[in-house]
Amino acid sequence: MKAGENVVMGLDFGTDSVRALLVDAATGDELASAVRMYPRWSEGLYCDSGRSQFRQHPLDHIEAMEAVIREVLSGISADTVSRIKGLSVDTTGSTPAAVDSHGTPLALLPEFADNPNAMFVLWKDHTAIAEAEEINQLAHSWETDYTKYSGGSYSSEWFWAKMLHILRADPAVAESAYSWLEHCDWIPHMLCGHRDVLSMQRSRCAAGHKAMWHEVFGGLPAEAFLTALDPRLTGIRNRLYDQTHTSDTAIGTLSPEWADRTGLPESLVIGIGALDAHMGAVGAAIKPYSLVKVIGTSTCDILVAPTARHRGQFVDGICGQVDGSVIPGMLGFEAGQSAFGDLYQWFARLVTYQQEQHAIIGRILEALNQEAAALPITETDEVALDWVNGRRTPDVNPALNGWLTGIRLGTDAPRLFKALVEATAFGSKAIVDRFEKEGVPVNEIIATGGIAKKSPYVMQVLADVLGRPIKTVNTEQSCALGSAMCAAVAAGLYPTVNAAQEAMSSGFDREYRPHPDRIGIYEILYQRYQALGALQASILNDR
Amino acid sequence: MKAGENVVMGLDFGTDSVRALLVDAATGDELASAVRMYPRWSEGLYCDSGRSQFRQHPLDHIEAMEAVIREVLSGISADTVSRIKGLSVDTTGSTPAAVDSHGTPLALLPEFADNPNAMFVLWKDHTAIAEAEEINQLAHSWETDYTKYSGGSYSSEWFWAKMLHILRADPAVAESAYSWLEHCDWIPHMLCGHRDVLSMQRSRCAAGHKAMWHEVFGGLPAEAFLTALDPRLTGIRNRLYDQTHTSDTAIGTLSPEWADRTGLPESLVIGIGALDAHMGAVGAAIKPYSLVKVIGTSTCDILVAPTARHRGQFVDGICGQVDGSVIPGMLGFEAGQSAFGDLYQWFARLVTYQQEQHAIIGRILEALNQEAAALPITETDEVALDWVNGRRTPDVNPALNGWLTGIRLGTDAPRLFKALVEATAFGSKAIVDRFEKEGVPVNEIIATGGIAKKSPYVMQVLADVLGRPIKTVNTEQSCALGSAMCAAVAAGLYPTVNAAQEAMSSGFDREYRPHPDRIGIYEILYQRYQALGALQASILNDR
Repeated sequence: MKAGENVVMGLDFGTDSVRALLVDAATGDELASAVRMYPRWSEGLYCDSGRSQFRQHPLDHIEAMEAVIREVLSGISADTVSRIKGLSVDTTGSTPAAVDSHGTPLALLPEFADNPNAMFVLWKDHTAIAEAEEINQLAHSWETDYTKYSGGSYSSEWFWAKMLHILRADPAVAESAYSWLEHCDWIPHMLCGHRDVLSMQRSRCAAGHKAMWHEVFGGLPAEAFLTALDPRLTGIRNRLYDQTHTSDTAIGTLSPEWADRTGLPESLVIGIGALDAHMGAVGAAIKPYSLVKVIGTSTCDILVAPTARHRGQFVDGICGQVDGSVIPGMLGFEAGQSAFGDLYQWFARLVTYQQEQHAIIGRILEALNQEAAALPITETDEVALDWVNGRRTPDVNPALNGWLTGIRLGTDAPRLFKALVEATAFGSKAIVDRFEKEGVPVNEIIATGGIAKKSPYVMQVLADVLGRPIKTVNTEQSCALGSAMCAAVAAGLYPTVNAAQEAMSSGFDREYRPHPDRIGIYEILYQRYQALGALQASILNDR
Repeated sequence: MKAGENVVMGLDFGTDSVRALLVDAATGDELASAVRMYPRWSEGLYCDSGRSQFRQHPLDHIEAMEAVIREVLSGISADTVSRIKGLSVDTTGSTPAAVDSHGTPLALLPEFADNPNAMFVLWKDHTAIAEAEEINQLAHSWETDYTKYSGGSYSSEWFWAKMLHILRADPAVAESAYSWLEHCDWIPHMLCGHRDVLSMQRSRCAAGHKAMWHEVFGGLPAEAFLTALDPRLTGIRNRLYDQTHTSDTAIGTLSPEWADRTGLPESLVIGIGALDAHMGAVGAAIKPYSLVKVIGTSTCDILVAPTARHRGQFVDGICGQVDGSVIPGMLGFEAGQSAFGDLYQWFARLVTYQQEQHAIIGRILEALNQEAAALPITETDEVALDWVNGRRTPDVNPALNGWLTGIRLGTDAPRLFKALVEATAFGSKAIVDRFEKEGVPVNEIIATGGIAKKSPYVMQVLADVLGRPIKTVNTEQSCALGSAMCAAVAAGLYPTVNAAQEAMSSGFDREYRPHPDRIGIYEILYQRYQALGALQASILNDR
């Protein structure tokens, strides 16, 4: 393939906005890019942060997507437009919505147009805490523990908990909900003009990581389990799916309607969608036994390993383990930390009490980074636990919380900030160590996301604590680039995702190498972090 | 005695300044008061805060005392001056100095005029940490554990540790040091013109609480113990003291020289001195089974109980237990918290990172108090440990440190401040509970000091956590008032300290009563504080 011959598009639906990235399929070079905010979401509609209710209207996605694609196309020639061969999407998740038999989210029907329960239930919506607890209790006592590949604890942020919550909370929606779709499944089928929800091809990634789909279970949890959970779920399994599909799969071509609405060519192949971090790992050039850390407010950590070599293996304490969720033929492991950049932001807000915070938070974080970087590292330093938003991995436990210890009268803001940065790095080390302890080597660490780009001090601490080099990805659009790579495969331009990665990768812009003289002292402080964490868990168990 | 008939003076030597308080001996009414800073100390001379070396030149005390007495006398009539019958002093402590055979601090001799090791080693000087450790190790393995009545751990802030440190650090001072005096012993003997250190009457309070003097030991630790500690101590015991004296004791009358220098009448009776918090307890109208909390940057907690009823009793984990240290015939117990107001100041500095702190710290603390007071109190609140300066009581342990736990992303500065205030109150409760567990009832809580006056929120939390009313003392000069009361007894104006207290007390200005609905929730949070503290102690032991 020559440069300029073929073009592919990745659509990355984030929490606040959708990005469209157009790249040369031969080189991965960016041809155009644009971002559009979701209009209703930007106004705070349908949300209630006090109750952690976060809903997105499907019209937000439709309108922003149309606009962003048109904006990207407006900057390139008609000839280039005609060379666009593939499009794939990634979205947040689990972000499901109730749909009718055509796969149309109920909020697009007039009678549900303003009903938040008929909209997409955004990943960070926590209204289904009670339902998640019920799922966990039933699963742990069921003959098959369906949470096994989800870290042993089903989250209130995931598919079944949200569905069950809505079915209970809103009889009208329950009555009209023929089936349910993840956001990453809805967009590509809508673009293809598919109108039969039962024949829609579902994302392996979303199904495996968020809906307890697994081949050893025979797909989704059994009908008997779902009925035992709540009779409202009876029959829904037959209107969902048995089979799931990897991101190299083409599901169709762009419908005439959507070609007209967007200006994209009708010949365009649409690929299976996936969750954003997984596409981000593809875009960050993940390969077997690489751990890609997508580091932002939280982290999502993705590792892939050849399925053939690890078949039947179960990695204890790691949240998601799904064959083909990232790359076909590879087990995709998902881990993560519930608060990373969020922890730093929390602290910056704390130390700017009663100031006009938004204006100065960036400057304060910069100062904290600089001052913390200049501090010596000693055995008696303050030690923090980073779980201000619970612990995601290893051994998910949302009840855990943040601690600051070793505080002396001489402890100042930079010293505590240093302890917090180290705590996030210790949390990362706990994940890496768990993989290796469970027989999955971690050969390489790749970092992407906002923190990876903007915080050299944090990245250096991470390298020092892990005792390994960390490469940061050259592009800031790993997710959209990963989607574009998968689109190229789905469109038949490459035989495998790996081949697309090799041709289209953006490369790395920096490598952080560990300071050999810090590895020992960080090992001591890490043991202290681990001991404190174990104590906290034991206290919570005692209550 | 009629009002106006007799007048007494209390001199209160604090860390930064000396206060003179002149009161009517019949009523306790204040006639005049003045404060003078120590001039060399104010310039930071002879100190090195990086090494925690804090020394005070005896000329600072002399010059400030002369000036402050002259200032007080300048405001009253010659007739009133002639009616001044007694003067007693309280000082910080343990604040010892090496002296010659006349009881003159070596720094008053020309050859030692600028030598910090020849000056008073201020209570908060921490240069003797190694020596304190040695004393502890030897005492714990000796047939008699001389630390028993000092909480089981001898402090680097105390007499023997400081003496040993200076003897080792400065051979010239060691060579010329005939004996040693506490600050509270030096001032009254100097005022009397006494010139023989061997016959000087020493304060029971300072000796018992800071120098391990106890009647069951036969006085100070045995010669064999001291020699085993370091041969440099050999012989010093014979040049110190066997007997000690309570604060109702007159040691003489004002010398002609000092009458001339100060303008006070020669007939004036000088009483035995004591440590400031103990005189403060007298001034705060302490009576049997009252706990007086002197609450400032740290707290000093004083409780008295009839010696006859508790003779031979040992109260585990309480730092000091000395017959007559506060009131003759009463066991004086000293407990305390190493950081109280200091903890709030620490937090205020933390949350004003990179601001012009001094100007705003008062405003910030006010805002934190107001916002914290408005918060609900729930079982899942943040819980802190208050030991940012180690733990003094119960069960002294300087290695313990501050913790903040239960932190969530929604945890803001007022919530953490609330947890810190509660932690200082829990620390207070641990002391009260220990007294009662060991068979010493606590019938009344009296608070004095800066925090007691200025922080109604803190005092209310303290009442709620303790589940008891707390009275705050009407005067801000409890220490100087207590010294004046003891001066009245030493001068023969009252038969007992108790009689002087009844006549001269300033009374109470406010009583904080516990909210009945908060006692239960605070009991739960207190259990959590105790559990966390036990965990921290177990971690430190494991290291």
